[in-house]
Amino acid sequence: MNRHLVIMAGGIGSRFWPMSRPENPKQFIDVLGVGRTLLQLTVDRFGKDFKPEHVWIVTSAAYKEKVREQLPDIPEENILLEPCMRNTTPCIGYVAWKIRKKYPDATLVVSPADHFVVDTQEFRRCISTGLDFVAGSSNILTLGMKPTRPDTGYGYIQSGDVASSEKNILEVNAFREKPDLQTAKQYYSDCKYNWNAGIFMWDASTAEAAIRMFEPEMAVLFDKMSESFYTAKEQEVVNELFPQCNKISIDYAVMERLAGKPQQLNGQKGGVYVMPSDFGWSDLGTWGSLYAQTSKDQNENAIIGAENISMIESTDCIVRASGQIKMVLQGLDGYIVADDNGTLLVCKKNQEQRIKEFSETLKK
Amino acid sequence: MNRHLVIMAGGIGSRFWPMSRPENPKQFIDVLGVGRTLLQLTVDRFGKDFKPEHVWIVTSAAYKEKVREQLPDIPEENILLEPCMRNTTPCIGYVAWKIRKKYPDATLVVSPADHFVVDTQEFRRCISTGLDFVAGSSNILTLGMKPTRPDTGYGYIQSGDVASSEKNILEVNAFREKPDLQTAKQYYSDCKYNWNAGIFMWDASTAEAAIRMFEPEMAVLFDKMSESFYTAKEQEVVNELFPQCNKISIDYAVMERLAGKPQQLNGQKGGVYVMPSDFGWSDLGTWGSLYAQTSKDQNENAIIGAENISMIESTDCIVRASGQIKMVLQGLDGYIVADDNGTLLVCKKNQEQRIKEFSETLKK
Repeated sequence: MNRHLVIMAGGIGSRFWPMSRPENPKQFIDVLGVGRTLLQLTVDRFGKDFKPEHVWIVTSAAYKEKVREQLPDIPEENILLEPCMRNTTPCIGYVAWKIRKKYPDATLVVSPADHFVVDTQEFRRCISTGLDFVAGSSNILTLGMKPTRPDTGYGYIQSGDVASSEKNILEVNAFREKPDLQTAKQYYSDCKYNWNAGIFMWDASTAEAAIRMFEPEMAVLFDKMSESFYTAKEQEVVNELFPQCNKISIDYAVMERLAGKPQQLNGQKGGVYVMPSDFGWSDLGTWGSLYAQTSKDQNENAIIGAENISMIESTDCIVRASGQIKMVLQGLDGYIVADDNGTLLVCKKNQEQRIKEFSETLKK
Repeated sequence: MNRHLVIMAGGIGSRFWPMSRPENPKQFIDVLGVGRTLLQLTVDRFGKDFKPEHVWIVTSAAYKEKVREQLPDIPEENILLEPCMRNTTPCIGYVAWKIRKKYPDATLVVSPADHFVVDTQEFRRCISTGLDFVAGSSNILTLGMKPTRPDTGYGYIQSGDVASSEKNILEVNAFREKPDLQTAKQYYSDCKYNWNAGIFMWDASTAEAAIRMFEPEMAVLFDKMSESFYTAKEQEVVNELFPQCNKISIDYAVMERLAGKPQQLNGQKGGVYVMPSDFGWSDLGTWGSLYAQTSKDQNENAIIGAENISMIESTDCIVRASGQIKMVLQGLDGYIVADDNGTLLVCKKNQEQRIKEFSETLKK
């Protein structure tokens, strides 16, 4: 079994302010109030099929200690530190080149650090089936989430012909960016469209070949960096060369360019595929999605975190207290109430897309 | 000038929770956000006519250090410490007996520690006129506040015949407890009724004689305690005997019994009088009254205290931040938002009479 798990854990989670901040973003927080951070829950979710030496975390240099603390079993050399944010292609390039140097035949599943899944068993079945599908091929497999509403906050994957009916895998015709509401409603009524969850699988060699094809300058940089991998000079070299990488997402750089147009990669045809999946998923990208995933009291209030919160004649609220302050909340209907690090946010739940704007109204 | 100022500063201010708490009640807090506590503002208001040796603070033993800190000019022997709360008659008995022992001819003005006055000059004029009126007599003069609304939260003073047209002083026919709304409206439309502000003036000898007449057992206790006043044993003796005092307000014990029925006190007829006054007054008894007395932003929000509060699409709120947390408040209309000592209250302004109930919903 040459399966490796890559977790991208470099985000700053600005939409969950004030709970999530650049110095402590949401993947490192027990957002759900269950005693485990989102990063820990992510590793837990993939299960024991991935031994610690096969789990790789790519994050910002600033979060190294948090990762070490929260995932003490992961070897230090498996924690890759980006000196700056360059979106997902350089992130994946770094880890793919590094894994391949030690494990030339590795097959990777790449996952965000901060998502939520209801049915772990079905999730693991999908991952296992998907890794079987891509292993030894030049194909890329994405997971498509069956939409439960015409959401305008997700990208959509448009599927085409069936590639494997046994494995429930289809070709990808195109990736569609976050749509307007009318378009989202069209997608929602058309079974060809699934949400793009940002989880995908490919061989490390496919990742390297695809980046070499579509971002050749970046590939040259990783070829150079690769000489230092697993040596004492690695971080120094990465710190010097990584910032020269083009700032581009893997969706733009590879997925969209390859969708519907398979190419020769590593001497065999490689394309992009999708496995429609239905294991109960949320990217926990917003307070609203967190509200949807947490249990409610009899007044439809979701109360997460601290114990000492008193709700009086309040309904339909999501309250996430740090435990640093007690709260008595009376007469609130449909609000987000969150405190952290000495900052309190109270805002209408339906205004949550403006939280970044709200956070910027405070003096620094 | 034998004028003495007595400030009753023993309240616990539960209606201003969480800002005001038994361990730090509102008289010791800069409630208005002006840089001075209510107690300091009260002493300031009376002005330099009262030299520090003539200012007396009666408070709970628990607050001694707060008083010393906030009023460093007041001699320590002028800070009287009640071992327990016994309402205003024992409070006034203690200070009247004590002052009289050292200053037999003292004239007292007795004031709560936590009220608000707009026109300090007019206030001082009223106090000075009133002290002239009672000095050397056996009369008691109360200040009546001209009502600005049919308030059901105040007691009312019903005036009778004119006693001094020059000084604008009338006899008191009766004290009326907090009325229902219908009665309050009658009072409001009748110029005979004024709010009872709890500020009154009398000679120390009148105070002693009145308490001796109406609460003779209490007078005996103070006669005993008096032997220890200004000695090292004072506090010990007070701690032993003060708790034996009847728990009764000065309004019940003296004012109501004397109103309309003058008595011989100290060999001359003494009665209760009222000076209708109009200097802009609030007892700051509730968040609503604090809201009324503070400046508002363009959206009718009163923001008191800390600087780092951001109001977005919020109207008609009163926000009192401790400075311990920053706040972003969006979409709130008509709320009280207050934090202190690690506790946050958000509640509808029109529910403020339930704040004590709200505070009790938190675990201790």
